[in-house]
Amino acid sequence: MKDIAVYPGSFDPVTYGHLDIIKRAVKIFDKVIVAVAHNSEKSPLFDVSERVELLKKATRGIKGVEIDDFQGLVVDYVKSKGSKVVIRGLRMISDFEYEFQMALTNRKLSKDVETIFMMPSESYSYLSSKLIKEAAALGADLKGFVPAFIEKAIKAKL
Amino acid sequence: MKDIAVYPGSFDPVTYGHLDIIKRAVKIFDKVIVAVAHNSEKSPLFDVSERVELLKKATRGIKGVEIDDFQGLVVDYVKSKGSKVVIRGLRMISDFEYEFQMALTNRKLSKDVETIFMMPSESYSYLSSKLIKEAAALGADLKGFVPAFIEKAIKAKL
Amino acid sequence: MKDIAVYPGSFDPVTYGHLDIIKRAVKIFDKVIVAVAHNSEKSPLFDVSERVELLKKATRGIKGVEIDDFQGLVVDYVKSKGSKVVIRGLRMISDFEYEFQMALTNRKLSKDVETIFMMPSESYSYLSSKLIKEAAALGADLKGFVPAFIEKAIKAKL
Amino acid sequence: MKDIAVYPGSFDPVTYGHLDIIKRAVKIFDKVIVAVAHNSEKSPLFDVSERVELLKKATRGIKGVEIDDFQGLVVDYVKSKGSKVVIRGLRMISDFEYEFQMALTNRKLSKDVETIFMMPSESYSYLSSKLIKEAAALGADLKGFVPAFIEKAIKAKL
Amino acid sequence: MKDIAVYPGSFDPVTYGHLDIIKRAVKIFDKVIVAVAHNSEKSPLFDVSERVELLKKATRGIKGVEIDDFQGLVVDYVKSKGSKVVIRGLRMISDFEYEFQMALTNRKLSKDVETIFMMPSESYSYLSSKLIKEAAALGADLKGFVPAFIEKAIKAKL
Amino acid sequence: MKDIAVYPGSFDPVTYGHLDIIKRAVKIFDKVIVAVAHNSEKSPLFDVSERVELLKKATRGIKGVEIDDFQGLVVDYVKSKGSKVVIRGLRMISDFEYEFQMALTNRKLSKDVETIFMMPSESYSYLSSKLIKEAAALGADLKGFVPAFIEKAIKAKL
Repeated sequence: MKDIAVYPGSFDPVTYGHLDIIKRAVKIFDKVIVAVAHNSEKSPLFDVSERVELLKKATRGIKGVEIDDFQGLVVDYVKSKGSKVVIRGLRMISDFEYEFQMALTNRKLSKDVETIFMMPSESYSYLSSKLIKEAAALGADLKGFVPAFIEKAIKAKL
Repeated sequence: MKDIAVYPGSFDPVTYGHLDIIKRAVKIFDKVIVAVAHNSEKSPLFDVSERVELLKKATRGIKGVEIDDFQGLVVDYVKSKGSKVVIRGLRMISDFEYEFQMALTNRKLSKDVETIFMMPSESYSYLSSKLIKEAAALGADLKGFVPAFIEKAIKAKL
Repeated sequence: MKDIAVYPGSFDPVTYGHLDIIKRAVKIFDKVIVAVAHNSEKSPLFDVSERVELLKKATRGIKGVEIDDFQGLVVDYVKSKGSKVVIRGLRMISDFEYEFQMALTNRKLSKDVETIFMMPSESYSYLSSKLIKEAAALGADLKGFVPAFIEKAIKAKL
Repeated sequence: MKDIAVYPGSFDPVTYGHLDIIKRAVKIFDKVIVAVAHNSEKSPLFDVSERVELLKKATRGIKGVEIDDFQGLVVDYVKSKGSKVVIRGLRMISDFEYEFQMALTNRKLSKDVETIFMMPSESYSYLSSKLIKEAAALGADLKGFVPAFIEKAIKAKL
Repeated sequence: MKDIAVYPGSFDPVTYGHLDIIKRAVKIFDKVIVAVAHNSEKSPLFDVSERVELLKKATRGIKGVEIDDFQGLVVDYVKSKGSKVVIRGLRMISDFEYEFQMALTNRKLSKDVETIFMMPSESYSYLSSKLIKEAAALGADLKGFVPAFIEKAIKAKL
Repeated sequence: MKDIAVYPGSFDPVTYGHLDIIKRAVKIFDKVIVAVAHNSEKSPLFDVSERVELLKKATRGIKGVEIDDFQGLVVDYVKSKGSKVVIRGLRMISDFEYEFQMALTNRKLSKDVETIFMMPSESYSYLSSKLIKEAAALGADLKGFVPAFIEKAIKAKL
């Protein structure tokens, strides 16, 4: 059961940065479950089922990916899937300390689940769903940040 | 009057990390006043009098500790207590810049009050009351983060 | 058109740190437009027109400064002014990563606009409008943080 | 070939922090090759063959570990072993930026090799071989930093 | 005299990251003097005159660039050139604190000289001449790090 | 014996930043022993006895200060002096991670010795003996960094 890894997050919506991590992860693990967290964002732009749909569409054609959503603790979800590994993308900017704190908390909650960190391409190392949504609200062109169908979905929401 | 130090914070609720700092501080100062700030958290889980009670129970048996609450500026409170020293715990993760900014602002507000920083044990270096409350809300076991009676109090609130 | 630079921000309200950057910038550029962003703060203390007025008063006597406000993307505003340069002040504490992320996002939105970073005096390197407002609400004396007429304006609001 | 990972480093000498990472890594990968780099330290305390011996002794009983040494680029060594994954331990303190820089450089040198980061236990998050050697030279007791036979080997060298 | 800026450094040798900053700087300033510091590296790979030659060749065709070398304090050199502005590239990784310390020291040495920071493209945000030389010594292909003629010059030296 | 604190360092030479910390520390502790470490700098500008003399002269008139030098582990020295407290100045720039690592190592070496961190004035928050010596070697005026008699001593050495 070494070969399943879980990539949890809010994915509101998925960006090129997330997709870059997913493509790197499937080279290392047989199956990568991308898991949308309920309630992880205070006032999300997309609801969980919409985020799952956008992820499914964006990862079409990437082998070894499964899209799911979950409630409750990450570590409980990971174990329920027969996995021991949480994947987190590590952006060059500002993620590190928060990620470390989460990973140590998760380890204390469950010794059997290990978090590994992967880096996206440096081209995506500063992307954040939050900044993208703010830029979109101000009328920005999102090409280079998200796939075209996601830009459309964002603009339809706003 | 060198020997009184004030350890201010929101303590919503007190964690093993806070207790670790308190135990270290009483080895250096004759009296350590742990002071719960009013209004420091936007929507606290426990009100100020509850936080004071939990602190009193958690520090029972530690010599040289006094629990109090305060309103207004920290520096004014510290001087009203005949103290010149503010203690702040410095976690390895993410506290540093905010703490530094607060300490410099306090120094500008009052030249007579000095802030000193102490480190908790590395086992508690990532604990945050906020993460603990989030984990509790998702059903996590809090053993290792807070004393058992505080876990009960948290779960009773949620 | 090399000589116009835009210094955008929320300026709620302007502090000695902002004024320090403005004075440094006018030595390098012929004209510095200080541009108050609409909607950049969730619940601002001063509305945009008040912030513009305070800035005008605080920069009286500094040659080469123009005060304005703007809506929409910074990069669009900068281009509309015939400028290519965004100035951002970089405090020693905590700004860096957020600023970098903004600058890279802006660059992706518009290749023609360059962000440059300047440092305020180390005496102002930890000032933040947010902390100042919090301290004021607790009754602090703001001398050393903001000009006297701004302290009055803040206290009148609270 | 997904299941081999390489954990490169100087290991001069191996610490409890390194051993903690190795134990975590073998839960995720079928085989973990711990690879001692030639010339990675300017004036090492132990030569490469000694470091390999100490590692072999320290990892005795951990299943799935292989000890080796290598010359030249990490990415070339990793590919020569039929692996695609480099493991790096990420201490809470100070490694991050250097590690990120190395990982991005390695990625540019070889697109097929991915670096993943793992965290040691928080008890070992500040251990560095360098500090340990400095402390030993000043007469420190190394219990809690390295296994007893390594403490002996260090003191014999000094 | 607003329009001359000085970009000092060791440039041992110039990388794509340096060239990226130079190209950005000439859009803002009329003249950018790239100034190679004597003695800035302990054991440089290229001597100062070689570094000047490599810079001249690498910046051929970029308008508004002048290559020079200097001894002594940066601030004295900048003033001797009739300039008031020092440009420093800020890589996403690890430069920040050192750069800030240098800039504040320079400001104390000369109030008339202002340091501004610019960011290279995120593709070059992690490049360091030091890492490139280390990789080259290990046999790495340097395409993507430096222009081809500089790769040749490096390999000829090693 | 709560009232003795030790402030160890290389002090090569003492700067206004160090003096600022010393003045703050004597307000909190009855006696502050400023202790010059042997061998802490690879090639010091001043030998230990010279550094002790410069410190004595610079702290003349500050009550409660004692100047000393020590060899071996800091924690052993602290205990030999009947003290339990190590003071470290924390500059805003770059010290933090190294200081934390040292403090945790010291705590593991001796549970009875506690490290506390204090902040110098923000005017000295970036001073480093190393940068000052480099600037002096290039002919800089050191007023604002060190007392005049120390500037003379530095220039006599170079």
